[in-house]
Amino acid sequence: MKILIIGGAGMVGRKLAERLATDGRLGDKEISALTLVDVVAPAKPAAAKFAVKLLTGDLSVVGEAAKLVADRPDVIFNLAAIVSGEAEQDFDKGYRINLDGGRYLLEAARAAGHKPRLVFTSSIAVFGAPFPDAIGDEFVHAPLTSYGTQKAICELLLSDYTRKGFVDGVGIRLPTICVRPGKPNKAASGFFSNIMREPLAGLEAVLPVSESVRHWHASPRAAVGFLLHAATIDGAKLGPRRNLSMPGVSVTVGEQIAALGKVAGDKVVARIRREPDPFIEQIVAGWPRNFDPKRAVSLGFRADKSFEDIIRVHIEDELGGKIA
Amino acid sequence: MKILIIGGAGMVGRKLAERLATDGRLGDKEISALTLVDVVAPAKPAAAKFAVKLLTGDLSVVGEAAKLVADRPDVIFNLAAIVSGEAEQDFDKGYRINLDGGRYLLEAARAAGHKPRLVFTSSIAVFGAPFPDAIGDEFVHAPLTSYGTQKAICELLLSDYTRKGFVDGVGIRLPTICVRPGKPNKAASGFFSNIMREPLAGLEAVLPVSESVRHWHASPRAAVGFLLHAATIDGAKLGPRRNLSMPGVSVTVGEQIAALGKVAGDKVVARIRREPDPFIEQIVAGWPRNFDPKRAVSLGFRADKSFEDIIRVHIEDELGGKIA
Repeated sequence: MKILIIGGAGMVGRKLAERLATDGRLGDKEISALTLVDVVAPAKPAAAKFAVKLLTGDLSVVGEAAKLVADRPDVIFNLAAIVSGEAEQDFDKGYRINLDGGRYLLEAARAAGHKPRLVFTSSIAVFGAPFPDAIGDEFVHAPLTSYGTQKAICELLLSDYTRKGFVDGVGIRLPTICVRPGKPNKAASGFFSNIMREPLAGLEAVLPVSESVRHWHASPRAAVGFLLHAATIDGAKLGPRRNLSMPGVSVTVGEQIAALGKVAGDKVVARIRREPDPFIEQIVAGWPRNFDPKRAVSLGFRADKSFEDIIRVHIEDELGGKIA
Repeated sequence: MKILIIGGAGMVGRKLAERLATDGRLGDKEISALTLVDVVAPAKPAAAKFAVKLLTGDLSVVGEAAKLVADRPDVIFNLAAIVSGEAEQDFDKGYRINLDGGRYLLEAARAAGHKPRLVFTSSIAVFGAPFPDAIGDEFVHAPLTSYGTQKAICELLLSDYTRKGFVDGVGIRLPTICVRPGKPNKAASGFFSNIMREPLAGLEAVLPVSESVRHWHASPRAAVGFLLHAATIDGAKLGPRRNLSMPGVSVTVGEQIAALGKVAGDKVVARIRREPDPFIEQIVAGWPRNFDPKRAVSLGFRADKSFEDIIRVHIEDELGGKIA
């Protein structure tokens, strides 16, 4: 089985590649070759016993997609995107990368003619306020950002190209990934991870919103699990609606902090500094808080069991089991 | 006020142009100029006392959209589309005309920089079965045709371009237009009109489905009313969700026939010949049957009052008041 990961240098792409390398197989099929491509050079997953090709390239450049699918990968993961903030600041770039890039890939896969499984990472940003208490599988996609618009459009294209038999698409709307490893970043959503990751590493973190803010989370490990399941699930079970809200953990920031206390103790919690930021509070107010992802659950997608588990995954996968 | 109608040679475009010519104004503004453009030559509305420009052109050709908005029309109606059946048969043409054409228009309007009101005719084809009993304003867009996909994508673009302040968009999802004037056509939906129009003209018509089939209708006159209201409504009242399911009349085919009997008598009804067609029955089974268009109604969009009224509109507007 040949696998292509577009966006292979990103956090989720890297973890997915590492998991594929460790497993050596996807579902019941042995992996023979893996291609990673991104706008910056991807890294080779250390454990890989199969052939790994590392490419740099931009999916939104005409002709790139055709090159990527020329060797007819059986499974394509399209994780490539510019993030919400950048898509909002640079309208044309957002549409070029997140919409045109996705469309070029669908066209290239259609031209290749072998109907590959195409796993597309969509986002809960396809939903826009006002929301019901828990967003169900039949709630309207009315995004309030260009990023969410681009993801919603790619979902529609994925379903239509699948319905026409051009690809075998599965789109998954990832919850916010938490705890995101790496440095604190300026994304408005960054604090959800910052207030966990930094204190666990012995550093102070700023909480800019009130503890009553509720949000929808999945660990990086759960996200990789979603991708693997999306790559191997029987497409016939999905029917024509090929895009699914993934399960997650809905917690308030207060519940996040309580979970941190249980797992790591009061000393770690004390490293969170409250510094309310009305600007961030206002942005976050427009974000989904909770989902009722019945279809994904019935199709076998599995979330983390609790926010404590999300923290434990971070300690195991990123901190070698040690808390500072 | 300068008005541009793209798709001005189509049935709805023609009726809209005639209405604008008769009124001489749109809302409280006098019309100074009207441009009609279509892939075939549009006709000049006879009653027009303002300047009328008639153009042929294809919106999906790069550069065409920019020419059309060069004189900065205050209101643009985009009614241009290839229909559902053709978009399904010719995938590339459908995306070129219905998606790329719409996107070029948005880009041209953005470049013009004067934030015109852009009224876009979407379709109930953005919805796909399974449906609730009545489709509400928050029901997911999961189309089951390429046409519906293209319309759903243009809706998303219209909202995003409006949110960014590039245009002032309003999208309206028209019910099936009934009674559609002209000759019987081969559209799967054609029979809804055929079984009214042909008997009223003294001709036989074929009913290919059972009388229990329920569908969602608006007269051509109501459709023009929706367009005029969409062109003049205060955009601020819509908020960020700029696309609306229009109100309509939900009736079964049996109720359509009963209404025809009431308005035109048994002799006319007797001209309907039952000739069940399982293929058409199956297509129609996937179509929306009923809506609960609360937002549009609260915003002042008004449907025909009954199916009898829909028949009367046809007799008045198309038959000079006379039944054969």
